Amino acid sequence: MSWEDKVRKVEPYVAGEQPKDRDVIKLNTNECPYPPAPGVIRAAEALKEHYGNLRLYPDMDATKLVNALADYYKVDPYQIFVGVGSDDVIAMCFMTFFQSGKKILFPDITYSFYDVWAELYGIPYEQPALKEDFSIDVRDYLPERTGGDLGGIIFPNPNAPTGVEMPIDQVERIIEANPDCVVIVDEAYVDFGGTSALPLLEKYDNLLVVQTFSKSRAMAGQRVGFAIGNKKIIDYLKDVKFSFNSYTMNLPAIELGTEAVTDAAYFHEITGKIIKTRECFKQDLRDLGFTFPDSKTNFVFAKPPKMSAKDLFMALRERKIFVRYFNKPRINEYLRITIGTDEQMAKVVAAMKEILG
Amino acid sequence: MSWEDKVRKVEPYVAGEQPKDRDVIKLNTNECPYPPAPGVIRAAEALKEHYGNLRLYPDMDATKLVNALADYYKVDPYQIFVGVGSDDVIAMCFMTFFQSGKKILFPDITYSFYDVWAELYGIPYEQPALKEDFSIDVRDYLPERTGGDLGGIIFPNPNAPTGVEMPIDQVERIIEANPDCVVIVDEAYVDFGGTSALPLLEKYDNLLVVQTFSKSRAMAGQRVGFAIGNKKIIDYLKDVKFSFNSYTMNLPAIELGTEAVTDAAYFHEITGKIIKTRECFKQDLRDLGFTFPDSKTNFVFAKPPKMSAKDLFMALRERKIFVRYFNKPRINEYLRITIGTDEQMAKVVAAMKEILG
Repeated sequence: MSWEDKVRKVEPYVAGEQPKDRDVIKLNTNECPYPPAPGVIRAAEALKEHYGNLRLYPDMDATKLVNALADYYKVDPYQIFVGVGSDDVIAMCFMTFFQSGKKILFPDITYSFYDVWAELYGIPYEQPALKEDFSIDVRDYLPERTGGDLGGIIFPNPNAPTGVEMPIDQVERIIEANPDCVVIVDEAYVDFGGTSALPLLEKYDNLLVVQTFSKSRAMAGQRVGFAIGNKKIIDYLKDVKFSFNSYTMNLPAIELGTEAVTDAAYFHEITGKIIKTRECFKQDLRDLGFTFPDSKTNFVFAKPPKMSAKDLFMALRERKIFVRYFNKPRINEYLRITIGTDEQMAKVVAAMKEILG
Repeated sequence: MSWEDKVRKVEPYVAGEQPKDRDVIKLNTNECPYPPAPGVIRAAEALKEHYGNLRLYPDMDATKLVNALADYYKVDPYQIFVGVGSDDVIAMCFMTFFQSGKKILFPDITYSFYDVWAELYGIPYEQPALKEDFSIDVRDYLPERTGGDLGGIIFPNPNAPTGVEMPIDQVERIIEANPDCVVIVDEAYVDFGGTSALPLLEKYDNLLVVQTFSKSRAMAGQRVGFAIGNKKIIDYLKDVKFSFNSYTMNLPAIELGTEAVTDAAYFHEITGKIIKTRECFKQDLRDLGFTFPDSKTNFVFAKPPKMSAKDLFMALRERKIFVRYFNKPRINEYLRITIGTDEQMAKVVAAMKEILG
């Protein structure tokens, strides 16, 4: 037997392309077109004052960042868990909550990291199909249909890559109907007009809400994500995290991350601008003959007229416009287009007009 | 059944205390007493120029940092894996290489995170006892005694918290005798006078060497660790890492980390100073009647005369000198004392003289 026979062999998640060429219109990974809050640049400038502290381990509880989040979301600090992006947070959640050996559920069309995590940990899973309109059929997550006793449930709300939001009363039905497993609502895109499940924490202790700084807080490069839940669920998550890596949040992530969350005015300004741009872009898409489910996110998932999604993807790419194409059943006729600035979207629309003739 | 019955319940690793009071002599977590390389402060200052890029995902391959490490260690970039401190790297290694269901081996007295990871992942393990002089008995890791077909082997060299180095020919015997499993040599402390196993990579493809920026590179606050191995072993590790979190290294970690590794002169200056201080401190300890195994690290693991280690630990703490005490069998009569500056060690020695009378 060779050492290779003993290795865990997995098919890793494939993230959206990150072109080295900065001269492209990059609308393929749902980043924010605006810079982080101005406080972040001041924190970056002030980082040199912390230079001497870089030799020391960072605050393993990331207290400053956690307190800022607690203030913003009006919860107690012990209700918050922070990680290296929401991917780190969710990876820890799978390890903590989805390990009973019972099957977990998530939609067939959703964030494509969920099945990668399930495979990594050997967690059995089922993926109920979205309805034809790309909405989640809430009944697929209720005991009447599942038989109950699930290993866990996770879904993004709004969903990705569709952009479709599940009404909050349906989210609540799922949480309420499954008190015997943890339900994770992945709210990566909630800040672009969606309704958060956070108020439901008062009623349900099996709910965990996950959010990220990578989209609405324009901090993908800093890697900060977080979960909010009741104390008990957060404590379980912390125990696993502290059995994995005591110090995940480095000093710059704590310092710059804190500034990214305290400036509510800036946050509302940029998310408001993105929503406005999105609504204009939707109209442009309609005028061009695209069809798409309504989006409550910073992207639109749209099916082009006249030509295949793949061909349009390639044609846009030739014009240095990067969008996301998924070569997967049911969604391979759609493109996921991140909302950039008004100027960027005007260029996209102009390019589409040209390509589609 | 409640959701809590489905949770992974673990006993997390307990890191050394991080006092909020900065007015202490902090010799309890093996941090470097000197600041990072001067290039790091320049990189921190230059971070504001990257402010606009923080909205974008960082380079998921951390190419700049990886290339700097490859240059420094004279290996190919594809031989390098980087993570959020060496804890993150080793956590990934356990998940990748130690999952065959066969037992892994590490010493009974060693880095106390190893058994936490093994418990987290449900990996069977055995911990051969160190000899009375705290050296590893190489025969405990050879097929004559183990029966062969192990799930894996990991040990720090030099070992922690003892500081004892295993001669490199014995390290080689272990690697050579176990071609059917991965052998991880955790070289967190190798830069303080130890001999690295890196040259053995030319002969053995089952070897993985792990190092960290937290000690000799004075960057604990930045969270950077790395592994070096042959391409095949690194590729397996990357597959698991990219199934866990695509973007672990944030922009500041890449920028500041690169500067921490390129300045060889500064690196040799500070590690040389620490070695010199350590040798003086050893003589002071001998004069005071301490006994200790010889250390090749940035700490000394010493047994006090006249009083118990715990009492001395408490007495030093009252004087705002923090060292590390492990309340564990076989080592509860020792203190692990990090090597600080000459001035700090003089204060420690003076305090000890006073306490021991």
